Amino acid sequence: MRGYSMHKDDYQRRLARIEGQVRGLARMIDEEQYCIDVLTQIASVTRALQGVGLGLLDEHLGHCVREATERDPGEGDAKITEAVTAVERLLRA
Amino acid sequence: MRGYSMHKDDYQRRLARIEGQVRGLARMIDEEQYCIDVLTQIASVTRALQGVGLGLLDEHLGHCVREATERDPGEGDAKITEAVTAVERLLRA
Amino acid sequence: MRGYSMHKDDYQRRLARIEGQVRGLARMIDEEQYCIDVLTQIASVTRALQGVGLGLLDEHLGHCVREATERDPGEGDAKITEAVTAVERLLRA
Amino acid sequence: MRGYSMHKDDYQRRLARIEGQVRGLARMIDEEQYCIDVLTQIASVTRALQGVGLGLLDEHLGHCVREATERDPGEGDAKITEAVTAVERLLRA
Repeated sequence: MRGYSMHKDDYQRRLARIEGQVRGLARMIDEEQYCIDVLTQIASVTRALQGVGLGLLDEHLGHCVREATERDPGEGDAKITEAVTAVERLLRA
Repeated sequence: MRGYSMHKDDYQRRLARIEGQVRGLARMIDEEQYCIDVLTQIASVTRALQGVGLGLLDEHLGHCVREATERDPGEGDAKITEAVTAVERLLRA
Repeated sequence: MRGYSMHKDDYQRRLARIEGQVRGLARMIDEEQYCIDVLTQIASVTRALQGVGLGLLDEHLGHCVREATERDPGEGDAKITEAVTAVERLLRA
Repeated sequence: MRGYSMHKDDYQRRLARIEGQVRGLARMIDEEQYCIDVLTQIASVTRALQGVGLGLLDEHLGHCVREATERDPGEGDAKITEAVTAVERLLRA
């Protein structure tokens, strides 16, 4: 069982809210709202998405990475490098 | 008429795709897929959102900012500072 | 003359300060200070660098892009796309 | 001993190179080089700084966080949350 399954409901609520925000963006563009307001809302959706990612990262490090390390420190190191590469992808998204 | 109204259909298609990706994220978490795969997908959705933002910024600079500058250079300067502040919010999202 | 030449002294002061911060990072690592403190300082230097970039972007849009647009709107459009591509590189740095 | 002390020389070399790049930025502005070229160079320095941060994060997770977890899993959790908060600061820099 993945570590994050305890917080599944919280993630589902946050993603449902983000989905609504993306629909809101489509509506803003349909109504030709001011560009800068759309950009502000895009920054807000991005931040909400990153928040989900940071929550998952926290749980991944406390569960998957920890368990891998307990089985085998070398496997733990590989998981850490994998997680840092995922952080790099978020940073460069 | 906002500058981006010419590309409305393109933005709507991209946002519909992003909305589908966010639903995909909810499904990945529901199915307890591997955290790192969810993080990779979050980076991909973030990048797609930023792409919409960059497209809007391009049109905003070519339309709203340009028209403001033609009316009054001081108004143009204010619009530029407003756009740069929006970029800052994207950078720090 | 580039638009930013009016603010040269301000940029030079900010960059001299950033250079000092980078030397401070080297010293923190030499003294084996706590990783998280080094990361916090890296975030601070990054933000200072981005601040210089945003200042340059503001002036570029108000000078080079504006002058290009006055000469030829098509040339202005090309300059805008070039500036948005530069923003994209900052976002993905 | 901090985990990163094994790679001290590598970090020192990278930071010396970044310091040189920041001095190069000051020179570019002094010579009034093209804004977009300065922005491209700022993106490159930012990426180099983030690279140092990601290296430190990797070692921090494999050393400090791992040792804290071995002493006490609750302490390990606190260290993980601290590291994720540091990632958040990098993301929002």
